[in-house]
Amino acid sequence: MGIKRVMLPAKDVDLSSVKYEPEIVQAPHLTGFLFRLFVRLLEAPFIGPLLLAHLKKENKINELLRHTVIPEEPMFKPEYPPQEKEHGVVELDEDGKPEDRVKSALNCLPHYDPAKLWENTSAPFQYWKIRDYAYAYQFGKVTPSMVAERIISIIEENGIDKPPTPLLLSFDAADLRKQAAASTQRFEEGNPLSILDGIFIAIKDDIDCLPHPSKGGSTWMHEVRAVEKDAVCVSRLRSCGAIFIGKANMHEFGMGTTGNNSNYGTARNPHAPDRYTGGSSSGPAAIVASGLCSAALGTDGGGSVRIPSSLCGAVGLKINYGRMSMEGCLCDSGTVEVIGPIASSVEDAMLVYAAMLGASPANRISMKPSTPCLPTLSFNDDTDALGSLRIGIYTPWFNNVHSTEVSDKCEDALNLLRKAHGCEVKEVVIPEIMEMRTAHVVSIGSECACSLNPDLQDGKGAKLTYDTRTSLALFQSFTAADYIAAQCIRRRIMHYFLEIFKKVDVIVTPTTGMTAPKIPPSALKSGETDMPTTEQHPN
Amino acid sequence: MGIKRVMLPAKDVDLSSVKYEPEIVQAPHLTGFLFRLFVRLLEAPFIGPLLLAHLKKENKINELLRHTVIPEEPMFKPEYPPQEKEHGVVELDEDGKPEDRVKSALNCLPHYDPAKLWENTSAPFQYWKIRDYAYAYQFGKVTPSMVAERIISIIEENGIDKPPTPLLLSFDAADLRKQAAASTQRFEEGNPLSILDGIFIAIKDDIDCLPHPSKGGSTWMHEVRAVEKDAVCVSRLRSCGAIFIGKANMHEFGMGTTGNNSNYGTARNPHAPDRYTGGSSSGPAAIVASGLCSAALGTDGGGSVRIPSSLCGAVGLKINYGRMSMEGCLCDSGTVEVIGPIASSVEDAMLVYAAMLGASPANRISMKPSTPCLPTLSFNDDTDALGSLRIGIYTPWFNNVHSTEVSDKCEDALNLLRKAHGCEVKEVVIPEIMEMRTAHVVSIGSECACSLNPDLQDGKGAKLTYDTRTSLALFQSFTAADYIAAQCIRRRIMHYFLEIFKKVDVIVTPTTGMTAPKIPPSALKSGETDMPTTEQHPN
Repeated sequence: MGIKRVMLPAKDVDLSSVKYEPEIVQAPHLTGFLFRLFVRLLEAPFIGPLLLAHLKKENKINELLRHTVIPEEPMFKPEYPPQEKEHGVVELDEDGKPEDRVKSALNCLPHYDPAKLWENTSAPFQYWKIRDYAYAYQFGKVTPSMVAERIISIIEENGIDKPPTPLLLSFDAADLRKQAAASTQRFEEGNPLSILDGIFIAIKDDIDCLPHPSKGGSTWMHEVRAVEKDAVCVSRLRSCGAIFIGKANMHEFGMGTTGNNSNYGTARNPHAPDRYTGGSSSGPAAIVASGLCSAALGTDGGGSVRIPSSLCGAVGLKINYGRMSMEGCLCDSGTVEVIGPIASSVEDAMLVYAAMLGASPANRISMKPSTPCLPTLSFNDDTDALGSLRIGIYTPWFNNVHSTEVSDKCEDALNLLRKAHGCEVKEVVIPEIMEMRTAHVVSIGSECACSLNPDLQDGKGAKLTYDTRTSLALFQSFTAADYIAAQCIRRRIMHYFLEIFKKVDVIVTPTTGMTAPKIPPSALKSGETDMPTTEQHPN
Repeated sequence: MGIKRVMLPAKDVDLSSVKYEPEIVQAPHLTGFLFRLFVRLLEAPFIGPLLLAHLKKENKINELLRHTVIPEEPMFKPEYPPQEKEHGVVELDEDGKPEDRVKSALNCLPHYDPAKLWENTSAPFQYWKIRDYAYAYQFGKVTPSMVAERIISIIEENGIDKPPTPLLLSFDAADLRKQAAASTQRFEEGNPLSILDGIFIAIKDDIDCLPHPSKGGSTWMHEVRAVEKDAVCVSRLRSCGAIFIGKANMHEFGMGTTGNNSNYGTARNPHAPDRYTGGSSSGPAAIVASGLCSAALGTDGGGSVRIPSSLCGAVGLKINYGRMSMEGCLCDSGTVEVIGPIASSVEDAMLVYAAMLGASPANRISMKPSTPCLPTLSFNDDTDALGSLRIGIYTPWFNNVHSTEVSDKCEDALNLLRKAHGCEVKEVVIPEIMEMRTAHVVSIGSECACSLNPDLQDGKGAKLTYDTRTSLALFQSFTAADYIAAQCIRRRIMHYFLEIFKKVDVIVTPTTGMTAPKIPPSALKSGETDMPTTEQHPN
């Protein structure tokens, strides 16, 4: 029994009285034997529910969801009124050919000067952008087959597709050669399919891509679920000529943000092999950051594209929910998870995004997403496409980071936007961040538990990593009423963001509150649970 | 642990192979001491969860939701593509004045001949329709104040607002006189607001209507939730001149279909006082059936308007979800519950419906409901508005009733449509009825538990009827993953219905599988649980 809380309707909340309260997640940090013991206790009758009840109480989950009258009705998927058209953008045709959208995206980019890449041969390492490859292919400086051979030799020599530290969970050299040969031939015939022809892309292991299985980082998912065709996003990229190098490592079923995977081994950060990549799209981010591929596809429901991109120094885009069909993904039934591109530059992320986007028929009925568009970056000297942006910052949140390295860099970026581009920076207030996080974990966790339930009931639970089992024990303890209450919070949060976006165009925050954490050696064999640290990805 | 079931995608299901399997709910029928003991066991630690697990196993709830791979993504609210415009209908303006919509509805009705009512004075009892009152008011045969006095004296003489068998839970003679006097004056001045001016309407106790409290049939809801204004539906009717006689009895919080209410006493069926009215809108249906009011508003999430209307011999309309704002109802946060009119005739239900309809702003964003419309019943001799209807019947379901009285009457009605109106009757198949029922009980139950949770956590659980406590114990045991799986089933079911409605315009079924059941005397003090019988309302 507890004391009932009654929330004011969101529209009546006085934002000037909101105080930011840094939130610390209450949970143990465990590895090795203690961790395995903890998981067994969590799963035990009687003691498991008691442990979970304690964890949930410490983190106020029940207080926020069960003891609170939330006056809003539930919002199960992101809903917002039709948005005004933006200026300086190019609209893309969702129903058109992916190649045509990529061409539109290309027209948004600044003038391409190949000299920049080819002249500066003294640099120790430089990412080739998609347009660099395209230029090299077009002018016969290199062929997709030559690049494929180079990639294959790097993979094979470095064991990139093998334990103990695989970036790829599935790799097929013969298939890669075949794709590259076809692309090479198209260039020889002068008929590349698009700027993405011959561009090497890695696919996270929870997105279907033939001829590979989709294991979702687990040891068994491919045994119960056969891949019969490419996911919609993959098939759109394929029709643009993209070449898929295989399935990239990930945190098992995306249920963690470190990238720890005790089934196959944990992907290492290319910038520091003793550190995590972040997750759950660990392999995709590391593959891009290592320069092996121009781009990768990840999935993101709670930071799974953004976190590893940030920790590996790549560009990761969490696209709008509803913007992209999830057909052919393991996580196709949720209300938060989306597919997003990872690349070494914004322009490459834009090109991949343009190719893959397109809402599912169901979402077009219920969500009616606005027409997708891209910013025109090919501005002339007089106009700065960024100059008109109104930037929102919630200072106490922005500064609530684990290390000043993060806040200093973010401050620099903000100053660049302010001074070099002339952006206006405005202070905003985001209330109810703790409620938002609680609603988020209940939503994504419940959706995850729902999709895994039939296999768990079928005895696959014991084949999961201890890490996943910890999360699932929590997720399965959420009640239906908790889930609905979380959706009522979603409506409040959407209200606050719609209000904020009347005043500003974007909200800037650090992606993660810390740089890549070190991997405890004891966590390699059976994983770890460290929610207080992983929650240092505040945004 | 169990065996995983994998469903075929709904679009691939072969309907010709579907077999109808009459479903029997497995649960005890209990009253009195045994019932109270059962509830205490259900709520006890350890034994409660075991009992619930047994009940759910018997009824295959876990098998259908947790052990089954459902390939569809969840559909949280009814979603369907924009519908084609129908012929022979009049569109109503949701944003217009309620009075104007009522005027449009009036134009849809056949010619009114007052002689029919006034000439046949020998009939023992005859319902006055709304147009009869309007005619009588207009021509000074009677005034709203005269009718109000008659109603007040009937209520007071018969104890209609008092235990042990109240139809009204809140009644205020002074307020009623005041409303009637205002209406009388409008008629005297020749300015009635609409055809609904001076029409007496009862409001179910879970819909806000000033000056009354909203208890939802409970003993305490009004203590924790004050009524500050009329519900949107009530305010629309009020602007048409309707007069509200008070708050009608109901099954506590709508969580049952008999109308049993041990807090205030159980409403009795006007046609047989030893029988139930059905519920949960027990009072509204009984008030209309007794002739006390022309119409009443109920709420319906699982039959709560349709069942009592059927068992009391009235017309009850469950309107489309999303058609009507639920603002000002206790059950305003669900995905199935709607407000619906109850009246003695279809034409009166139409008039009330026209006044009250209008989607909430939120639903207009996410659901984009099609323009509401009404059928033109004022047909001339050449065209029969019903004649073009294609009627769907699922014969084994249609005939799966508890008594032949029901099926015989329904057969008669079907024959009338077929022979007198020339409707085409087509056989249809509705697959997965058991899944549909399971998804429904999980949806409505979870939404109910969510809205009551804060008060339950605050110690109000012990103040509920045993009946409600039984349901809540079940509803609170549903997990978040169960709820999401139920929404995946919703998408399947919507698919099947959209397919069926390509072939037919309506599906006809008996509303309930039985006539009104007798009230066991032992159930009056502390209610009863009789799911096997209440589930005889198959449709």
